[in-house]
Amino acid sequence: MQSPRIITLTTDFGLSDYYVGAMKAVLLRECPDANLIDITHLIPPQDVVAGAIAVERAVASFFPGTVHLAVVDPGVGTPRRLLIAEIAAQYVVCPDNGLITWAHHRLGGAESHELTWRPLQLSHTFHGRDVMAPVAGKLARGEQLSSVSRPLPDPILLDLMPAEAPGRGRIIHIDHFGNATTNISQDLLAKDAMSVRTGGRNVGLVRNTYADVKPGEAIALVGSSDLLEIAIRDGSAAADLGLRVGDEVEVSGRENPL
Amino acid sequence: MQSPRIITLTTDFGLSDYYVGAMKAVLLRECPDANLIDITHLIPPQDVVAGAIAVERAVASFFPGTVHLAVVDPGVGTPRRLLIAEIAAQYVVCPDNGLITWAHHRLGGAESHELTWRPLQLSHTFHGRDVMAPVAGKLARGEQLSSVSRPLPDPILLDLMPAEAPGRGRIIHIDHFGNATTNISQDLLAKDAMSVRTGGRNVGLVRNTYADVKPGEAIALVGSSDLLEIAIRDGSAAADLGLRVGDEVEVSGRENPL
Amino acid sequence: MQSPRIITLTTDFGLSDYYVGAMKAVLLRECPDANLIDITHLIPPQDVVAGAIAVERAVASFFPGTVHLAVVDPGVGTPRRLLIAEIAAQYVVCPDNGLITWAHHRLGGAESHELTWRPLQLSHTFHGRDVMAPVAGKLARGEQLSSVSRPLPDPILLDLMPAEAPGRGRIIHIDHFGNATTNISQDLLAKDAMSVRTGGRNVGLVRNTYADVKPGEAIALVGSSDLLEIAIRDGSAAADLGLRVGDEVEVSGRENPL
Repeated sequence: MQSPRIITLTTDFGLSDYYVGAMKAVLLRECPDANLIDITHLIPPQDVVAGAIAVERAVASFFPGTVHLAVVDPGVGTPRRLLIAEIAAQYVVCPDNGLITWAHHRLGGAESHELTWRPLQLSHTFHGRDVMAPVAGKLARGEQLSSVSRPLPDPILLDLMPAEAPGRGRIIHIDHFGNATTNISQDLLAKDAMSVRTGGRNVGLVRNTYADVKPGEAIALVGSSDLLEIAIRDGSAAADLGLRVGDEVEVSGRENPL
Repeated sequence: MQSPRIITLTTDFGLSDYYVGAMKAVLLRECPDANLIDITHLIPPQDVVAGAIAVERAVASFFPGTVHLAVVDPGVGTPRRLLIAEIAAQYVVCPDNGLITWAHHRLGGAESHELTWRPLQLSHTFHGRDVMAPVAGKLARGEQLSSVSRPLPDPILLDLMPAEAPGRGRIIHIDHFGNATTNISQDLLAKDAMSVRTGGRNVGLVRNTYADVKPGEAIALVGSSDLLEIAIRDGSAAADLGLRVGDEVEVSGRENPL
Repeated sequence: MQSPRIITLTTDFGLSDYYVGAMKAVLLRECPDANLIDITHLIPPQDVVAGAIAVERAVASFFPGTVHLAVVDPGVGTPRRLLIAEIAAQYVVCPDNGLITWAHHRLGGAESHELTWRPLQLSHTFHGRDVMAPVAGKLARGEQLSSVSRPLPDPILLDLMPAEAPGRGRIIHIDHFGNATTNISQDLLAKDAMSVRTGGRNVGLVRNTYADVKPGEAIALVGSSDLLEIAIRDGSAAADLGLRVGDEVEVSGRENPL
């Protein structure tokens, strides 16, 4: 038996309404043997940057053939375009509002297509259910990209870039544990001792693992996204150090890349 | 291959305990190829009205043959009845406490059956796991309704009715974004300009789409449930306008139905 | 068709990040027809005791052949061991930090194995994704235990024991409804009237069902885990009585076991 096609879902819909279930109903109508995997539905309402971080993680975690449905759509009801992006042999179906930015930069350039398929009936407020989910389901069951879209040369990209040198980075995500992820990639860091500062505070050298500091102490290390993270061992860096998305992060010391 | 039968779950169990997992174990024991879809588990504890709104959305979103397991059960341990309702060629398995009210009114009259099947062992506090989940699983794998139930002529219905004219409605749900859904159906609204008031405040004319107002402005429009909604573009109507479930909503202007 | 193998997930990862999705991607890569069931991802961060309560409930709810992946791992990055425990003909894959304690005590002694399999690449912060999920997937698809582990005679167990007599118990869990579960098993309770006290307050006799008290009244009864629980009918015992995990509970009256 062929394995069912995987469709992941990333939204800002929350978990208290029927919205996620409504999209899943449409996905299963189009592709009855789809395997539906939630990434998160707790993207802060209309926070496209946070959505873009999650979309990159979804694509990086899954494998060729996966379809990712990502709906953070403050522009619903305006004439914004809808997008199918091919990244790492996977599809991302989402509004054309920059949700693919981080995946585009970190996983290799996206090849973008404007979604042209439209349903007979279309609500004014829920295009995730009415347009994007049907198309994600069609792609999962093997329909051709050309039957639902046309090439799009100029998808919107946000001002969300990987740092180009370790000295000039910033915090791009705070996770459930209060760990702060930066846009500073592992391959920018030298092997030798480098020192990390943020918010006027010295976090110390880049370490290998939590065990390198005592419980309650701050630590800078490369996290599971291959990005520099700032954490507190057995604590919350966001709460204890007052870190926020957008804060600047400086790394000094030997700066020649590996 | 026949597609797996779909069972949706709607409860007030929250997401921090084993309760949802325990029901899923029972569902998979009865029907190993069931496809389990969460609608929500964040119905406020024991809020049967909120549960009834979610159940209608679950049935409206899915398709014939789907089984919906809905457990908001403040009466567990009292002699309340359990119910199987047939609505729109789908089954709803739930306590007989009014959870089917909104689906009954909006999707066509429910045909109700009292659940007669009982397990050998029955806890005093968790009939979702011990009675309702086994029956939902049996229905999903094709067992006959008559083997687990008998006709029930008088299921309990709540005081939760669609508005009969646009002038006399109320808010029935506040969603994750702070949008307020009313009980005023789209087909009560005239095509011409109609004006909406709630909480002593004028929300303005019924519009088509968020783009008809500026960010931060209030808007009344028909939402994804085909009901009149009150929203703030890029904001929270519940927070900014102080809206609550039960608040009265008035629509004035041309009132002849479409 | 053989039913897909079930893998449950219990973590402290929360629901706002990509971490759960990343583990599911690995599980599906190893075992494409696995049926993934979330128990909870809202174990309080690094709370191994709360995780152990959830793991026992997961194993008690499911059936032979199920694989349970449980990741509450404050020791990641230290040289702590990883574990595969066989309990009730099911596998639990988790850090060796006591997560199996409650299942070991309540469901019969665990047979423990140290996980020896390691990936080619290993992050410093996410062994749930990099080591435990691959092994859970391998076990689900039928790989032999001996190919990924070796016997472990001395798994770590927490100070979390079932009460040995009803007079000396304590609260081990507060659930979503505010019900307080104790470590006092049903079979310690006499059939005749027994009286329950906690926090210097008399909760009254052990009852059968919520209907035995009025709404708003406190009640002690045997809950769905076959353990003594303290609840408020239609209310929250934790909020109204100020109950917390660790509080002592006394049961007096006839104390001879059934």
